[in-house]
Amino acid sequence: MASPPAPARFARVALVGRLASPGIALPLHRLAAFLSARGHTVVVDAETAADAPVPGHPTAPTADLARQADLAIVVGGDGTVLSVARQLAPFDVPLIGINQGRLGFLTDIPPARMEETLDAMLAGRHVEQRRTLLAVDVERAGGGGERLLALNDVVVNRGSLGSMIECAVDIDARFAYAMRADGIIVATPTGSTAYALSAGGPILTPQLPAFLLVPVAPHALTHRPIAIGDDAEIVITVIHGKDAGVHCDGQNHYSLAEGDCVRLRRAAFHARFLYPEGHDYFAMLREKLHWSATPERIARPPAR
Amino acid sequence: MASPPAPARFARVALVGRLASPGIALPLHRLAAFLSARGHTVVVDAETAADAPVPGHPTAPTADLARQADLAIVVGGDGTVLSVARQLAPFDVPLIGINQGRLGFLTDIPPARMEETLDAMLAGRHVEQRRTLLAVDVERAGGGGERLLALNDVVVNRGSLGSMIECAVDIDARFAYAMRADGIIVATPTGSTAYALSAGGPILTPQLPAFLLVPVAPHALTHRPIAIGDDAEIVITVIHGKDAGVHCDGQNHYSLAEGDCVRLRRAAFHARFLYPEGHDYFAMLREKLHWSATPERIARPPAR
Amino acid sequence: MASPPAPARFARVALVGRLASPGIALPLHRLAAFLSARGHTVVVDAETAADAPVPGHPTAPTADLARQADLAIVVGGDGTVLSVARQLAPFDVPLIGINQGRLGFLTDIPPARMEETLDAMLAGRHVEQRRTLLAVDVERAGGGGERLLALNDVVVNRGSLGSMIECAVDIDARFAYAMRADGIIVATPTGSTAYALSAGGPILTPQLPAFLLVPVAPHALTHRPIAIGDDAEIVITVIHGKDAGVHCDGQNHYSLAEGDCVRLRRAAFHARFLYPEGHDYFAMLREKLHWSATPERIARPPAR
Amino acid sequence: MASPPAPARFARVALVGRLASPGIALPLHRLAAFLSARGHTVVVDAETAADAPVPGHPTAPTADLARQADLAIVVGGDGTVLSVARQLAPFDVPLIGINQGRLGFLTDIPPARMEETLDAMLAGRHVEQRRTLLAVDVERAGGGGERLLALNDVVVNRGSLGSMIECAVDIDARFAYAMRADGIIVATPTGSTAYALSAGGPILTPQLPAFLLVPVAPHALTHRPIAIGDDAEIVITVIHGKDAGVHCDGQNHYSLAEGDCVRLRRAAFHARFLYPEGHDYFAMLREKLHWSATPERIARPPAR
Repeated sequence: MASPPAPARFARVALVGRLASPGIALPLHRLAAFLSARGHTVVVDAETAADAPVPGHPTAPTADLARQADLAIVVGGDGTVLSVARQLAPFDVPLIGINQGRLGFLTDIPPARMEETLDAMLAGRHVEQRRTLLAVDVERAGGGGERLLALNDVVVNRGSLGSMIECAVDIDARFAYAMRADGIIVATPTGSTAYALSAGGPILTPQLPAFLLVPVAPHALTHRPIAIGDDAEIVITVIHGKDAGVHCDGQNHYSLAEGDCVRLRRAAFHARFLYPEGHDYFAMLREKLHWSATPERIARPPAR
Repeated sequence: MASPPAPARFARVALVGRLASPGIALPLHRLAAFLSARGHTVVVDAETAADAPVPGHPTAPTADLARQADLAIVVGGDGTVLSVARQLAPFDVPLIGINQGRLGFLTDIPPARMEETLDAMLAGRHVEQRRTLLAVDVERAGGGGERLLALNDVVVNRGSLGSMIECAVDIDARFAYAMRADGIIVATPTGSTAYALSAGGPILTPQLPAFLLVPVAPHALTHRPIAIGDDAEIVITVIHGKDAGVHCDGQNHYSLAEGDCVRLRRAAFHARFLYPEGHDYFAMLREKLHWSATPERIARPPAR
Repeated sequence: MASPPAPARFARVALVGRLASPGIALPLHRLAAFLSARGHTVVVDAETAADAPVPGHPTAPTADLARQADLAIVVGGDGTVLSVARQLAPFDVPLIGINQGRLGFLTDIPPARMEETLDAMLAGRHVEQRRTLLAVDVERAGGGGERLLALNDVVVNRGSLGSMIECAVDIDARFAYAMRADGIIVATPTGSTAYALSAGGPILTPQLPAFLLVPVAPHALTHRPIAIGDDAEIVITVIHGKDAGVHCDGQNHYSLAEGDCVRLRRAAFHARFLYPEGHDYFAMLREKLHWSATPERIARPPAR
Repeated sequence: MASPPAPARFARVALVGRLASPGIALPLHRLAAFLSARGHTVVVDAETAADAPVPGHPTAPTADLARQADLAIVVGGDGTVLSVARQLAPFDVPLIGINQGRLGFLTDIPPARMEETLDAMLAGRHVEQRRTLLAVDVERAGGGGERLLALNDVVVNRGSLGSMIECAVDIDARFAYAMRADGIIVATPTGSTAYALSAGGPILTPQLPAFLLVPVAPHALTHRPIAIGDDAEIVITVIHGKDAGVHCDGQNHYSLAEGDCVRLRRAAFHARFLYPEGHDYFAMLREKLHWSATPERIARPPAR
């Protein structure tokens, strides 16, 4: 049987799944078959294949996928997507998320309908959202440090000993404020619906050029979430706190000592998410947050 | 005695004060004398002069001041500044606020030091902040309506009968969400430190190109403040509510009937605020919100 | 056909419904038939009968029901139950709520199963909850006033003009605090899941001997909900506010002038609610607030 | 010189201070001299004396103080008072707090006026507040456990790895709710102004017979603080969470494994705090929370 002609778009597609459940294998096989039939070259993330082999397709380490693919399709939850998106972003490779399990903020294509949805998207009927990332430099008081990336948020917080940390926030090299708290979250608009929301922060729509600073359980009751322009440089310094740490997307963790600081800027590149045409951010919010989808008027008895 | 030469900047200065207190007369006289001596032409707001005459200077109705002045100096509180700024904005006239009484979010020059501060500012040592305004169209279900302006916020809320209203929010002509609540606040960044803050909203720094939607006492606990791009068009429709109203900057009030809607866009012009050089937004926040000005430890680690 | 013998409990039962919808007639008829067959004397609230006649049973004005009945069965929502419960409480008549429409905090017996549920309850298999009420004296600065009752809450708030009121709170004749806000809610534990919850208050379990004070959109960010003993006398005085009002259970409204005060005490009697055996307050909270009914462990994939 | 006669009240007084600062020595010496002159026998906490010797008075280990004293006077902050109060409570010994440094919620006698204040209090002009404590049993899934005590709060929370824990709450042996969150705080009324307040909880006045459950950054936005009767038994079980811990008063820390549970009851004894006559809880709140001490209008309407 002759191979189908190579498709005009996204000739090479990487498949990634991270949910360690039996449920991951079937959608991956379906995807591989669907993509092959459509003429795409499929490469499977090696770590994914270790859990759920997809026979007949080459594998590649996650770190190499970005160089080998024009598109990544990720099956899993928001956590998986975060992790893959951080790796793809520097290489400008777009990503489509298939939600395994419950609906995510980032993954809103249900497996049941994925072939028909993808068929339309791969034919060009998609919208792209470019999401800002945080470039993170952990600068040790004693020298050295780490360079990290976050798509949702960077959290500086206390550790397991249960006492508050004190930290100072500088914005564009000017002291902004200090506070004692469990911690402070710096979130992108993407991250505003994640941990920052639990800590009392507002929602920022994805395209807003802003970073959000949210205190976690601040000692002073007048501290509030603050949104600032995403062209700002934010430096958080640990003033006091014996067991502080910094966390990127809740996935990468480093401990911090007093005097250490975390320098945050908008990354030079974006994460690229593809959504089906007609993707509706507020519809997703309504569903995730159990807002009433329609006004109550229709079913309500007439007023007396 | 020869007149001083006309100054290079702000040749004609309008003086406005609105605080109905004896305290307003003295700073106005001091300002008139100081400006005359500096060579500026002074024109006094007629309504101000009715309360606190400033002999020797012409008066003009507030509505005409904008056409006659290159700058307005306002003595009073944030409320006075809001009112004057809305009138000046369409004419592109900048404004300096002198706080009478306690420190305001918009007026941060104390009367005690106003001459020396103004001398520097009038000589060009100032910074300008352009603040977004909301252009408001109240559209009656039965036809007709009003056209309004707000610098802080537009509030759609219930009236005095104590039951919630239900309203629907459309953003860029697409249904976003509906909710039952005491009301909903749409605030500019300027207004984010006003009523929206009391209702649980975040702070948006003045230059963020965003509008903030804050529910007031929403029935559903999952409703949260949301910041969206200020290029969006927002329409709030009263779905249910017998005594709803719309309020601009807490100063202009109109009642709303079921089916009426309020259409909001960024105004085509800005309010222009002049601040002394070195104006520090976060310093103002720290003082107004009683944040500790410095970290609690005596010696903060030196900056790197 | 011989009448059934009079039942041992609740010989005379009042029926009340207030939802002005066609849906109310059927459950009322079913209830009347069921109760008659069980030997109870049925009397129908006259206002209810005007909307939904229940032929063959006498009617009585709501105000007289309490004297003629050993039990009231109310079909409707929480609003109907509040209204009826305030009228019954002084006469010590217990109440059972059948929820018409969606589940309420006070009415948790669905119409579909009401006969079997009531059969058990009328046979004695019920639990009783005694709920505290607020006795309210509105005292006019100029003399005179009103005496009111609230089962959920008493709200002192601003009216339709959109500016904050200032009020002072005295507890047991000692000044406690003053604040500027949209208003202040004093809630019973019953009312803690109503308006107070929307305004950011905590939940108080029904038997807690406490009143809850919740500010609505307070100007000072450090004001917080406060729970105090329900043996306290609370006096709220309107210090400043041109169009203030006081609202009991969101159903009875009076305007307040500056200097007027609202005096609140625990009423000498209780509202008596009967629930099916096994009634579970937290199960009701879980369902109403969409908390996960069971821990997530069962369905979750094994950790990696 | 003859000793003064033994005073009628509090013959033996223990002195305790814990603030590791030079500032502690002077008030301790002043107190010892003042008490001796008044005829009291003074015993100094051994740990205190190690830092700040008080010559001429015997010392005793903290654990033994309770058996040797009729009263303890504690110089320090709220943290010191918490620690000492937990040790004294089982022995029914009352405590007076002198605040070293800034005003505390528990220590409100300033050193500057301590002799005159104590003179009145030791003569009987004091009020006593009995504060509830939490008796804590940590029950290991694998058997064994710890028995602890808390005056402010017991916190079950995640550790330093930055992911939420999931825990289930049972109240009086019935499942109440489960949630994913940073943690959960169970606070006494005393603790309601401590960490629970930072996490968004309400204030409970000290005598309210209630425990307060406050989620910290809960995943589900509908979780809210809940106050329940203090005769309830609360069991918190760690359902999921790799590095959970339990913290009593932020001072005693134990790690928890999945399946471990923390059982909480009201302790059989109380902490006894003595305050000067006229002690005013709300005056303390006003000062600590920067509430305006008086209404903003110059003349509040006279009380009626």
